[in-house]
Amino acid sequence: MKKLQNLLDSDTREGRIFDLSIQGLIVFSLITFSLETLPNLDTDTQQILSYVEVFIISVFTAEYVIRVALTENRLKYIFSFYGLIDLIAILPFYLSSTVNLQTLRALRLLRLFKLFKLVKYNAAYRRVAKAIVLAKEELVLFTVLTLILLYVAALGIYHFEHAVQPENFRSIFDALWWAVATLTTVGYGDIYPITVGGRIFTFFILMLGLGIVAVPTGIIASALASVKRKETN
Amino acid sequence: MKKLQNLLDSDTREGRIFDLSIQGLIVFSLITFSLETLPNLDTDTQQILSYVEVFIISVFTAEYVIRVALTENRLKYIFSFYGLIDLIAILPFYLSSTVNLQTLRALRLLRLFKLFKLVKYNAAYRRVAKAIVLAKEELVLFTVLTLILLYVAALGIYHFEHAVQPENFRSIFDALWWAVATLTTVGYGDIYPITVGGRIFTFFILMLGLGIVAVPTGIIASALASVKRKETN
Amino acid sequence: MKKLQNLLDSDTREGRIFDLSIQGLIVFSLITFSLETLPNLDTDTQQILSYVEVFIISVFTAEYVIRVALTENRLKYIFSFYGLIDLIAILPFYLSSTVNLQTLRALRLLRLFKLFKLVKYNAAYRRVAKAIVLAKEELVLFTVLTLILLYVAALGIYHFEHAVQPENFRSIFDALWWAVATLTTVGYGDIYPITVGGRIFTFFILMLGLGIVAVPTGIIASALASVKRKETN
Amino acid sequence: MKKLQNLLDSDTREGRIFDLSIQGLIVFSLITFSLETLPNLDTDTQQILSYVEVFIISVFTAEYVIRVALTENRLKYIFSFYGLIDLIAILPFYLSSTVNLQTLRALRLLRLFKLFKLVKYNAAYRRVAKAIVLAKEELVLFTVLTLILLYVAALGIYHFEHAVQPENFRSIFDALWWAVATLTTVGYGDIYPITVGGRIFTFFILMLGLGIVAVPTGIIASALASVKRKETN
Repeated sequence: MKKLQNLLDSDTREGRIFDLSIQGLIVFSLITFSLETLPNLDTDTQQILSYVEVFIISVFTAEYVIRVALTENRLKYIFSFYGLIDLIAILPFYLSSTVNLQTLRALRLLRLFKLFKLVKYNAAYRRVAKAIVLAKEELVLFTVLTLILLYVAALGIYHFEHAVQPENFRSIFDALWWAVATLTTVGYGDIYPITVGGRIFTFFILMLGLGIVAVPTGIIASALASVKRKETN
Repeated sequence: MKKLQNLLDSDTREGRIFDLSIQGLIVFSLITFSLETLPNLDTDTQQILSYVEVFIISVFTAEYVIRVALTENRLKYIFSFYGLIDLIAILPFYLSSTVNLQTLRALRLLRLFKLFKLVKYNAAYRRVAKAIVLAKEELVLFTVLTLILLYVAALGIYHFEHAVQPENFRSIFDALWWAVATLTTVGYGDIYPITVGGRIFTFFILMLGLGIVAVPTGIIASALASVKRKETN
Repeated sequence: MKKLQNLLDSDTREGRIFDLSIQGLIVFSLITFSLETLPNLDTDTQQILSYVEVFIISVFTAEYVIRVALTENRLKYIFSFYGLIDLIAILPFYLSSTVNLQTLRALRLLRLFKLFKLVKYNAAYRRVAKAIVLAKEELVLFTVLTLILLYVAALGIYHFEHAVQPENFRSIFDALWWAVATLTTVGYGDIYPITVGGRIFTFFILMLGLGIVAVPTGIIASALASVKRKETN
Repeated sequence: MKKLQNLLDSDTREGRIFDLSIQGLIVFSLITFSLETLPNLDTDTQQILSYVEVFIISVFTAEYVIRVALTENRLKYIFSFYGLIDLIAILPFYLSSTVNLQTLRALRLLRLFKLFKLVKYNAAYRRVAKAIVLAKEELVLFTVLTLILLYVAALGIYHFEHAVQPENFRSIFDALWWAVATLTTVGYGDIYPITVGGRIFTFFILMLGLGIVAVPTGIIASALASVKRKETN
């Protein structure tokens, strides 16, 4: 009993090993979930994957039962964020005999959130959180500026390109998609200006935009450096 | 009367709620403007959108009348930046019975500028403005260097690619468009070098260019960090 | 005579105006050069452009003559960097009656170098130069690492993709072009991996590569901030 | 004998020249290796390249023999990292009369590792190593966050696009490839969302993702600046 309780305590050796095993199993279950989406799987593989799924669900069910059984404040755990995720991630499996909706099965993916425990007790995590709080006002400002800029970029390019490329720039919404792909510098190449006006406009919006879209990254890095400096002193 | 006056004062509770409502309505009007550009809208939707437009214009007209009526220095407001925008954004609607130009209707979009009020009273806004002033000389320098680099890149790639791809690299201006898309790392893929010389040139210009185009972002972030450090001390 | 001499002295009001006029004329001459590369120019425009060229050359010739005539140490100016550029940029025009090579005419573009005078007396220019000296060792290191990384990326992708896409990945040199376009995140889309192995390799090389290719920008920004901090104290 | 021994000592003038010559020869051998991959090489060139290869191998064999002969602790060198690389890089050539596998010949490329000696004795190298150690926790955190983000991005885009583009988004693995190309902002354009949902999802994941994928670069630059500041003080 004491041993089982140690499992749930992240400060003991057993607890850390248990946590890491669960994390490993989550990664493993994400891989099997991805494999299931492969087209043209032969029935043998499908069979194996469903066995694996049964095994994974069993472990997570056991984990849930242990947690419910051994946590002192049972109700608090059950209705906590991770408690609900633990439940919702296994429940669809047991319901699938009656309702077999793929959407429900996708709820298994909520396990993903448990991976955040991996980073949560990390010292860097706390520092990053502090840095984001420190840079909160700047991040809000640049987010608002980015949104305005995206809309202005979309308006401008729609104005220049709509008449010439009515297929690609059908509406402001297509133009917004172009603005997102361009100002993040992804540039898929599915949609781009071909008029002289549109290209010159793109040049100006990029000169202005790179300084707005990319600055937040630098702000977080600076804030992080400042948090770290304070900790060291 | 006092109540109405409070509306225009951003320091009162009523003023802040009024400001936010106006901002919300602007965002809403931008969405309906975007919806109007959708092709193949059925007449029902068009009807609804025109009703919505009448409603939006009414509110903004009311806002304008209130502001003119209640501001002490009436003329100063009317000919101020925001006063003119407030007027120009509603005027085309009333003229559209006589002149129905889409260009005139686009003037509504000037409302967009009012969104900047959202960020203007933010402490971060002041800091960013200070940071830009602090880094002004560097920003000018890197803007000039970027322009020279873009032209040199265009000259070089035109030299290497014009003979082989006369369709894509018709003139220096096409080459400039390539330079913009490449040095900002957008890379749409509508135009790219295929000769060995052009590719090697692209390699060198990118090695040099990334260090010129991306540095201003870092400079603003640094200046911002320095402004913040001074404020905290 | 005194007045003309003032023109050449950048510290006088006349000198600054003269310098700026020359810079403006250089930009203007770059624009006309670009216009000349436009295909299907009608003869009228070509005629105008050639008149403009005669005018530009006259001004630069006058500038050269004034500089040679008024500089005390005449030979030193003639064989200085800018002296040679001033000469080489006008000479081809006078030779073109005998030899009419387009390559020779391209020498006019050397005027471009004179634009650097625009930034040279700027305080930021000195600071950037200092910052680059300060970060020299790091910049050399990351340049070497970038080159090694590009070659390793090319080797790897060639290994994975050559057999499947012999047309796109013909040799290590095509693979190097892919590596340049990918690690700078330009990503034209003319050449990309399609095998599972090649895509996983691309993932790892990008995770590693972004940290190598983009760091120098941050290093320059940091060094610049450090130079500035020292100047202020 | 003394002279030969000086060659192996990087602190002597002869040693440095010897090291640089070896480095130069490695670069040269990488170029010839690349040339060998060119398709449609005529037999003359192939002949020359094979002679060059014999010459290169001879030099590296001589270097290996000298190192084995002159190093005091012979076994330690033979089984050291660079000792093994030196051997493995020349061995396949001598075996190729019996076994002629191209894979074996590729082992020559291990020479590449010897290039790292170029940067190893550099002061900047030590500083970068220190900076990485200093930022280790943050780098681990952001790597984990990047991996989670890539998976979430892949899940989301697969959900939105699979039904509409079953060819491009066949499985989660295709979606992961899209996530890698998008969040690194490479954006080849071989695979991109076309549904409204997929595009809006891409917008949000990019807003979040740029702040996660690009921050480590800023962290390394900050750490490097901090290491440098400490050295100067």
